This record gives sequence, structure tokens and C-alpha cells, in this order.
Amino acid sequence: MQEKAISIRNLYELSEDQLKQLKTVTVVGWVKNNRNSGKVGFIALHDGTCFKNLQVVYDADKPFFNDVSRYKMGSAVRFVGELVLTPGMKQPFEVHATEAVLLGDVADDYPLQKKKTSFEYLRDLAYLRPRTNTFDAVFRVRSVLAMGVHTFFQNNGFVYVHTPEITGNDAEGAGSVFTVITDSKEDPINDFYGRRASLTVSGQLHVEAFALAFKDVYTFGPTFRAEKSNTPRHASEFWMIEPELAFADLDDDMDCIESCIKFLIQWVMDKCPDEMDFFDRWIAPGVKDKLNHVLNSPFRRMEYTEGIKILQEAVKNGHKFENNNIEWGMDLQSEHERYLTEEYVKGPTFLMNYPKEIKAFYMRENDDGKTVAAVDLLVPGEGEIVGGSQREERYDILKAKMDKIGNTEGLEWYLNLRKYGGCIHSGFGIGFDRLLMYITGIANIRDTEPYPRTSSALKY
Amino acid sequence: MQEKAISIRNLYELSEDQLKQLKTVTVVGWVKNNRNSGKVGFIALHDGTCFKNLQVVYDADKPFFNDVSRYKMGSAVRFVGELVLTPGMKQPFEVHATEAVLLGDVADDYPLQKKKTSFEYLRDLAYLRPRTNTFDAVFRVRSVLAMGVHTFFQNNGFVYVHTPEITGNDAEGAGSVFTVITDSKEDPINDFYGRRASLTVSGQLHVEAFALAFKDVYTFGPTFRAEKSNTPRHASEFWMIEPELAFADLDDDMDCIESCIKFLIQWVMDKCPDEMDFFDRWIAPGVKDKLNHVLNSPFRRMEYTEGIKILQEAVKNGHKFENNNIEWGMDLQSEHERYLTEEYVKGPTFLMNYPKEIKAFYMRENDDGKTVAAVDLLVPGEGEIVGGSQREERYDILKAKMDKIGNTEGLEWYLNLRKYGGCIHSGFGIGFDRLLMYITGIANIRDTEPYPRTSSALKY
Repeated sequence: MQEKAISIRNLYELSEDQLKQLKTVTVVGWVKNNRNSGKVGFIALHDGTCFKNLQVVYDADKPFFNDVSRYKMGSAVRFVGELVLTPGMKQPFEVHATEAVLLGDVADDYPLQKKKTSFEYLRDLAYLRPRTNTFDAVFRVRSVLAMGVHTFFQNNGFVYVHTPEITGNDAEGAGSVFTVITDSKEDPINDFYGRRASLTVSGQLHVEAFALAFKDVYTFGPTFRAEKSNTPRHASEFWMIEPELAFADLDDDMDCIESCIKFLIQWVMDKCPDEMDFFDRWIAPGVKDKLNHVLNSPFRRMEYTEGIKILQEAVKNGHKFENNNIEWGMDLQSEHERYLTEEYVKGPTFLMNYPKEIKAFYMRENDDGKTVAAVDLLVPGEGEIVGGSQREERYDILKAKMDKIGNTEGLEWYLNLRKYGGCIHSGFGIGFDRLLMYITGIANIRDTEPYPRTSSALKY
Repeated sequence: MQEKAISIRNLYELSEDQLKQLKTVTVVGWVKNNRNSGKVGFIALHDGTCFKNLQVVYDADKPFFNDVSRYKMGSAVRFVGELVLTPGMKQPFEVHATEAVLLGDVADDYPLQKKKTSFEYLRDLAYLRPRTNTFDAVFRVRSVLAMGVHTFFQNNGFVYVHTPEITGNDAEGAGSVFTVITDSKEDPINDFYGRRASLTVSGQLHVEAFALAFKDVYTFGPTFRAEKSNTPRHASEFWMIEPELAFADLDDDMDCIESCIKFLIQWVMDKCPDEMDFFDRWIAPGVKDKLNHVLNSPFRRMEYTEGIKILQEAVKNGHKFENNNIEWGMDLQSEHERYLTEEYVKGPTFLMNYPKEIKAFYMRENDDGKTVAAVDLLVPGEGEIVGGSQREERYDILKAKMDKIGNTEGLEWYLNLRKYGGCIHSGFGIGFDRLLMYITGIANIRDTEPYPRTSSALKY
């Protein structure tokens, strides 16, 4: 029976006193770097349990010196050795090897060599790239952020609902959905479910029904878009966070969004300081300042109508947008959103009460008859990262709208929620992968997803 | 601006002293029950934040008495009132209403009336059934159990990996997968991804690559089977938990499974005592004893070969199985598994080292040349609830196996993991919905999923 290995994370979590008591340790992991002077060698050992490496020192007087000096980058190895505190050095401790075992060698065609590789090149190596510093950091932060999502909502009493991936309706009425079929020769589309089945574009409608039972709920799972958008911000499969709050109006919704975003940023900065330092230094200089600014800002609430006036004023004063034709009723482009949050407010901004024509059917019509209680959260350096609304709770108004666009059929159940103990309710959606981009400063959504799915990319 | 409502859960969490300081409270929720004697009325108010209701008392001397006495079951309501402690009564406190507002009425065709309704009937009302006691309990436990999964793995240093839903390969080589297409007229199957795309049946192969970077990882997400199995245990969409541990053999795997199952059971019993009492009383009498027995048992480890001998002995001694033809090499049926765990061991049992012919290609071949390092966890009252294995880490052996069954093409990357710093590793899979069935005692998988997906059922 071999001694259990201690993880590198555990080592870094121990106090100096605890470390002193350890003496001999067994460690396992992969070689990140291996160099030697002929008299003494140093291996940077990485075991994936934290961002940091462990320095393993091997001496020329050890019988395994020659073997170990040939351990290649990427090899799986085990060391037994003495834990030695090294105060004043770059790392607080190191292991002086007394035993070494090569568990898994690396073939010569190993595609990850020491030379700097591009993100594009690594994207084609989705199964190996988590071994690189950048993706080690990205995917650990992805995991921590996901846990942050659950922690925030569960701590606030929200019930997690697994809304279905396969569905008979889609939330937005938009066209770009995937259809699910079987191998049936006769009727591949209708054979299994007896009707056409799609991959969900949103769990919102489904989760609204649960909000009217549990008050505060959220769904967090994969969603799909069959759009061939070859941009750095579009993927055909991504994760969405969709909370829904009963007995809550648009103000309550914004309160929740602000707490949520601040909580998640703080959570990642607290749990992943090494990873955030790495992003700040190598990937997106300034990203930590950007996030701290969000944490320390009250989120400004601004009417869409006011936003339009500000943009018109900016144009009048000589600001050049790609689209300088600012009119009430228009759907704002990213450049406009960014002007408002970056140049005008200089901080996170809720833009709210949009023209009803440019927003979804389920959003609550305001008393002015022209706008709906929709809200987008705009943040500096990005633009929109959250979209939400108060939902139309009035049966007659919602039915008239749905009849007009012709999506009542199949959604009678959704309408019925308004006549069986309905109440005001609100919710929002956060694209999880885009939030991860924002927090890490990673510029391409393909580099935030373990196995990204975009049109023409399905290698794994 | 209205006073913020306090949730019923919050009320139950307060100490007696805190409750005494509250005096006036605002509460919102739905009417579960409404009765009155002509002089005084009682509403059981439910707000979905916990299983318990709040008793609201309304007196005949209040101007709203007649209105409130007509509030129907299911109506959304708001009360302001005095919080009164009621020591010695069934509920520890109640609210004496001073204001009452009907927020959302209930139409006369409301399908949930007081009379007892069957699970089959409710299954067709997926959007309303979370308002019933049973489904209120089931879906709250589902949420709590999901949080337990994340808590267990994250607390133990596992990295959460979102493996893809859409994939070019499937783990088991089994046939029953859904194909994903677009509306393209010319080539709906290949148009989007340039090749046939399926919905995943398992994230295991994908997550193995991440275990070889992060050591301990898990995936937890939806998986799909296009099998028209019309049984109480099969759904076409369900959630799977798939952990993967590097530098871990089958013993380590079993250690992790045992800790995980015990943690999750304890977690639900600690967080959902009211719900578990409800299941124990109304749904599956004895379920709490069953779970406590698992918590208090060491899990027995037994060779498949020994299991076969025990079953043969049982037949010899007159035990009648549906299939009495017990031979080494057979795949055990549920009746056999249950005999071993319920009658012979009388406790949770790991059955391990199965004949290689009946197990998947990626499982590690044992030195006997006949068995693989696979394990199933069998529990009394159910049979198998977890399946796992040590994975084949030896390139040549795995390649020979894959060549033989012909699935090497497209999985070269999976094979390559064995030549680029590979190491022993193990993992397991837990069907989340089935685990929820086991813990709640709910007999049909359709009653554990918010919107169940089975063949011919896709109403929502």
C-alpha cells in the first residue's frame, strides 16, 4: 500500500507549524518544467488542484538523478521527499526528493511543447489545453464561478430548477433552433415525441411556472442557438443562468441583479487570487481594476428614453458612432451601450423601460402604452451582460399580444399561469460564458468553454 | 412603497426573541386552505420558501372578513398583520390579519382542486403540480440535492467541468442517441457542424481529459437516451453526475463513492427534515430508516465472482429468481442484485471486477485476463445506484480493444491521453434523477423531473 499523496493545494493551505510537522510527503502530478545544473535539478510539479506549482529538488547524489533529469514536460510522476521550508525564496517550501517514479511518459509527438502557442492552435487541442497556464486558470475559475452561482441563489432561498433541454416551444419565438430527431426511417422528426422537438433557447417560460410555486427560483444549464454567427461572442451551446422572482417588480429585479453580479465578482476574486493575478498580468491588463470598480459602484438606473437623449446630445457634440442615427425606438448597438456606461455614467448602468416593439412578448407593458418593463445591465469594458424584465402578469393583455404574434398555440399553459393565482413577477438572464469572459478578460467565448461548439467545429 | 414581505422560511428560522420583536409583518403567498366559522377564519398560507405553511387568522370584526372568506385555494394574496406566538399549538406562531389584498384570483377551471389527485393526472399538469405538497417537497429536495452534489465535490477540491451536450462521439458506443439537425433544406444533418451531431449519453470521455489536467473533476449536467423504454425508471432526458479521479485506482473510486453517497443522504436529511418526514409518512413509509441504515453501514466490497457463488448457493437452497440460471459471465438482473444487497449482505454492497465481455471498452483489464476493474454500488430497496470503473490507462491494450470494436476513429484524442503523461484514473456515474427517487421514495422518474421527457411526452 502506497502512502497517500498530498495535494499541492493542501500544502499551500497548511500553516507553517503544520508544514514543519509533515517531514516526508508523497506528491503526484505532471512535470511543468525540468531543469538541472548537473549537480542539482528542479522540477516544477503541477497537480491541477491549484494554480501554483510545487518545486521538487533532486540531487546528483541520488541514484535516480539521471532518470529524473530526463523526465519530460507533461509526464505523470510521483515523488517522495522531505518537505523543506524556504523562507525568503520565491516559493515558501520545496520537496527534496528521496524517491521518484515515472508514472506516465510523454510521446515525442506531444503537441504542447514549451514554445508559446496561440489560442487558435490550442482551440483545436481542446483535450490538452487545460494543461496550459491560461486554460488551467480559465477552467478553474469557470468551476468556481459556477459554484458561486449556486451559492448566491441557494443562500438567498432560491430553488434550483432543471428546466428541460428538449422542448416543444421556444421562448423568444426566434427561428434559430436545433431540431432533435431519431434514426427512424419513416418519420425521424415526429417518431420519438410525436411532434417536432427542439433544443431549448431559454428556460424562462418553464421556470416562471416554478416561480409561481416556490417564489424565488433559478435555472442554470445549457442552452442552444443554431446561428452561424462566427464572432468571438457567439457559440451554439452555452450555459445560461435564469432566475425568476415572484411578487417582485422591476426594481426588485434590479436589486437582485446588482447583488448577484457583485457577489459573483467578489466570490471569484476571493477564491481565485492567483488566477486573477495571472489574467491581470498576461491576458487582460487592468481586469482587476475593472472588476473592483464594478464592486465599488452603485449601479445607476437610467430610462431608455434618457439614454437616447444622452446619445443624441453626444452626437450633437461631435461624438462619432458607426451608427449616428439615434432615434427613440431604436435597438441600441454595443457602441451606444458602451458610450452610456463607459463615457457618460462611467460605471455599471441599468438601462430600463425599452420601447415595446423591440422587446419580447412576455415583458410587462408600462402605463405609457409605449414601453415595457425591461432592463439591461451595461458594464464598462463590455456593454450588456444581463437582460431582464418584469413579466406581463395580466391575462388579457398578454393574450392579446400572443394572439397578435401567433404563438398562443402550445403556450396555453403559460397564459394560464395568469389566471391561476398569478402575481407580479420578474426575472433575468445571464449568459454564463460571457460573464466568465468578462471576469477573466478572455476575449473569445471559445476559450471559456471546455469543448466549444460553434458552426463547423465539433471535433470532440 | 410597500413594506417588504418576510418569507415564511425566515419566520421559522427566527428565535422566539426575534419573533417577539417583529410585531407587524407583511406576508405574501398562495392560499393552501381557507376555512371559517363565521366568526373567525383561518388561511393556510404557502409561499414556497419552505415546506411549512403559515396560519393567517382573520376576524369577523374586520371589514375585509367577507372578502377574505371567499379567497379560493391557489389565489395569490398579501396580508399585513400582527405576529402572535402560540406556544402549545400545532404551529408556533400565527398572523392576525389587519390588512388583506387579493393579488391574483383563481379561475373556476383551476385543475388543482382539493380532492386527492393521482400522480398520473398531475404529470399532465407539469406547470401546476409544484403547487401540491408532494411536488413542492420533491422539487425542493431536488434543488437541495443538486447543491449537495456541488458542495461535496467542491469541498473536496474537484473542478466542475461543463462537458458538451452536442457531441460527435458517444461514450458507450450504444445506438440510442438523438441526432441534432437544422432547418437547412439541402443537408440538415451536416449543414451546421459539417458532420453528424448527437446529444451526449455521457460526459465521461470528455471529462477524463480534464482529470488528466486537474486531477479531480466532475461533470453534472443533462444527458440523453433515445430509448423508447416505457418504464418507471427511464427518461429520455436526465441529469448525470460523473466524477473522475486521476492517480486513483478502484479502491480510491469506491472510497469516493461511499463518501459521496453518505454525504448526499446526510445533506438532504439535514436540510429537508419536513420534506423527509412527509415522504416517510405519505409516499414511502420506512424511507428514513432505509437511508439511516445506509448512513450507518460500512459498504461491503464483494467480488462479482463471489456474488455469483452466493446466488448459485441461494438457488441450491431453494430461492426462486425469475432467472434461476446463474452462471459466471452473466449480467446480473435487478432481482439478483437485490438479493445480494438485501438478503445476503443486508446493507450497501460494492460488487466489483466484472467479466470484461459485459462491460464497456474503457474499463481496465485485470491481471486475470477475464475481468475488468468495474464496480456497481448496490443498495437495499433499489439495486444498482452507482456504476464506476478504473479506466484502462495502457495505450496498447486500450487501442487493441478499440480497434476490435471499431470505435478508434474519432476517438484518437481519447487514446492519446494514454501516451501524453497518462496515469491510472477512475471514475463513476450517478443518475441524479434515480438517486432522487431513491432518497425520496418516489417510484416513477417522471415524478422527479420538473418537465419529464419520455417518448411521446413533450407537452411543455
